[in-house]
Amino acid sequence: MKIFRYGAKGSEKAGVILNEKKYDVSEGNFQYNRDFFADIVNLERLQTYINEKGDTLKEIADDERIGTPLEAPSKILCVGLNFDDHVKETKLQQASEPIVFMKSVSAFNGPFDGITLPKFSVKSDWETEFAIVIGKKASYVTEEEALDHVFGYVLHNDVTEREFQIERGGTWDKGKGCDTFAPIGPFIATKDEFTDIDNLKIWLKLNGELMQDGNTSDFIYRVPKLISYLSHFMSLLPGDIISTGSPAGSGMGKSPQRFLKDGDIIEYGIDGLGSAKQVISAYQAL
Amino acid sequence: MKIFRYGAKGSEKAGVILNEKKYDVSEGNFQYNRDFFADIVNLERLQTYINEKGDTLKEIADDERIGTPLEAPSKILCVGLNFDDHVKETKLQQASEPIVFMKSVSAFNGPFDGITLPKFSVKSDWETEFAIVIGKKASYVTEEEALDHVFGYVLHNDVTEREFQIERGGTWDKGKGCDTFAPIGPFIATKDEFTDIDNLKIWLKLNGELMQDGNTSDFIYRVPKLISYLSHFMSLLPGDIISTGSPAGSGMGKSPQRFLKDGDIIEYGIDGLGSAKQVISAYQAL
Repeated sequence: MKIFRYGAKGSEKAGVILNEKKYDVSEGNFQYNRDFFADIVNLERLQTYINEKGDTLKEIADDERIGTPLEAPSKILCVGLNFDDHVKETKLQQASEPIVFMKSVSAFNGPFDGITLPKFSVKSDWETEFAIVIGKKASYVTEEEALDHVFGYVLHNDVTEREFQIERGGTWDKGKGCDTFAPIGPFIATKDEFTDIDNLKIWLKLNGELMQDGNTSDFIYRVPKLISYLSHFMSLLPGDIISTGSPAGSGMGKSPQRFLKDGDIIEYGIDGLGSAKQVISAYQAL
Repeated sequence: MKIFRYGAKGSEKAGVILNEKKYDVSEGNFQYNRDFFADIVNLERLQTYINEKGDTLKEIADDERIGTPLEAPSKILCVGLNFDDHVKETKLQQASEPIVFMKSVSAFNGPFDGITLPKFSVKSDWETEFAIVIGKKASYVTEEEALDHVFGYVLHNDVTEREFQIERGGTWDKGKGCDTFAPIGPFIATKDEFTDIDNLKIWLKLNGELMQDGNTSDFIYRVPKLISYLSHFMSLLPGDIISTGSPAGSGMGKSPQRFLKDGDIIEYGIDGLGSAKQVISAYQAL
């Protein structure tokens, strides 16, 4: 199933996508929050509701805003340098185990809401990523158990200010959590929608020009490994997002380097997770 | 004013401390969450409620569990290496500007709930810290404006697994966000309770032996600077916690190094923010 949310920011309503058309399910009292993801019964209840409503489900107009497909999670965990070709282009040092960082939840944003460059930003960059939405709480799970704890998958742009990330001292978190830097969606696809998550194209175009052209088959660390690994450092809670790293083609890897500027348009997608599009805006005081 | 919460984990009720006695205010429909911190009117309403109730406020028994004094925030931002003597003992490299990392909100825990060592932990350590609770949203604020965005201050133990933090590749976040690693409280003191936040003793005892004995007068970066600085990377939201770094005396700085083990007891405090106490437990599968 593909679930999404629509409507004004902060008061989004629940919807589902059926045969590429968008339908409202909010009248069935569904809300895509931590409680929803925590219990598979909720997904079954949603399926029953859809079956019962059938042709009477209300279709959603194409001009409705698409929001994040879930309410803000407790955390956004990210894995860095999970593609060899991206490691090479960043010239950063690969570690002997997954690199982990966090993205501030205040960066959480809709997939078409646009990206605002931080004041003083000169090196804002894109990173198309395959992200996991946790279902059941995961603590010290094995790789074999890991997928039992997955609710589904979602498209994420791990927008990054490279100067803040690398040149400003300390950890990467400074350049990862700027406001609007975590566009999520357009929808969450439940895990049963995929036959092979290790063979999905990942792409991104900047102003129509192809920049990222990767495939999840090139993951250094695969999804079950990442979930198991992370669950040994902290509990992964229902609705938490784990972003799995980006392939080559980021702006810092280009020669010459190419960073986001006012008016740029990025469009990106992953097989099975749809596509998203953001217009870039310079910082403006409100 | 000093506010705190009490009762069973996950269903804590609001209270206030008056003349060192604890009173319930939950019947006045107060909840210490993001909405409460966002508007100073809520604090005024609480003061009015206390005045009206006077002697009829219900006193809370000493054996009631003390919870975190606020609901889980959207983020816990931390500043590293903010005391020269702690920089020296960790042998970590100081940066030319504040070091920032994040602590997973799933680590959030009550001040007397105890700390559970992660499975495979060999280097779990303590860090007593003065933490800020944000009131009004802060985005690109100056140092002069910074304190207008503070609701109050709270005691925090920035518990850290040193091996996970430093020896396991990548950023510090792996060793900072383990479950139970962010005991917060016992209470939040509103900012008007302090005449000088730059002269507060910070101490910690391990099994009765004094380990940390610092003072906020030794901050490298002071509170207004930290708020202004952080607000240039991301918005600080009502209820967010900013932890300001720990003085010397952590276990990794001892010679020989001393890390937490099953049965250890730590007790720590800061002038004006009370004290907290945690019993350390080895990991046990549930």
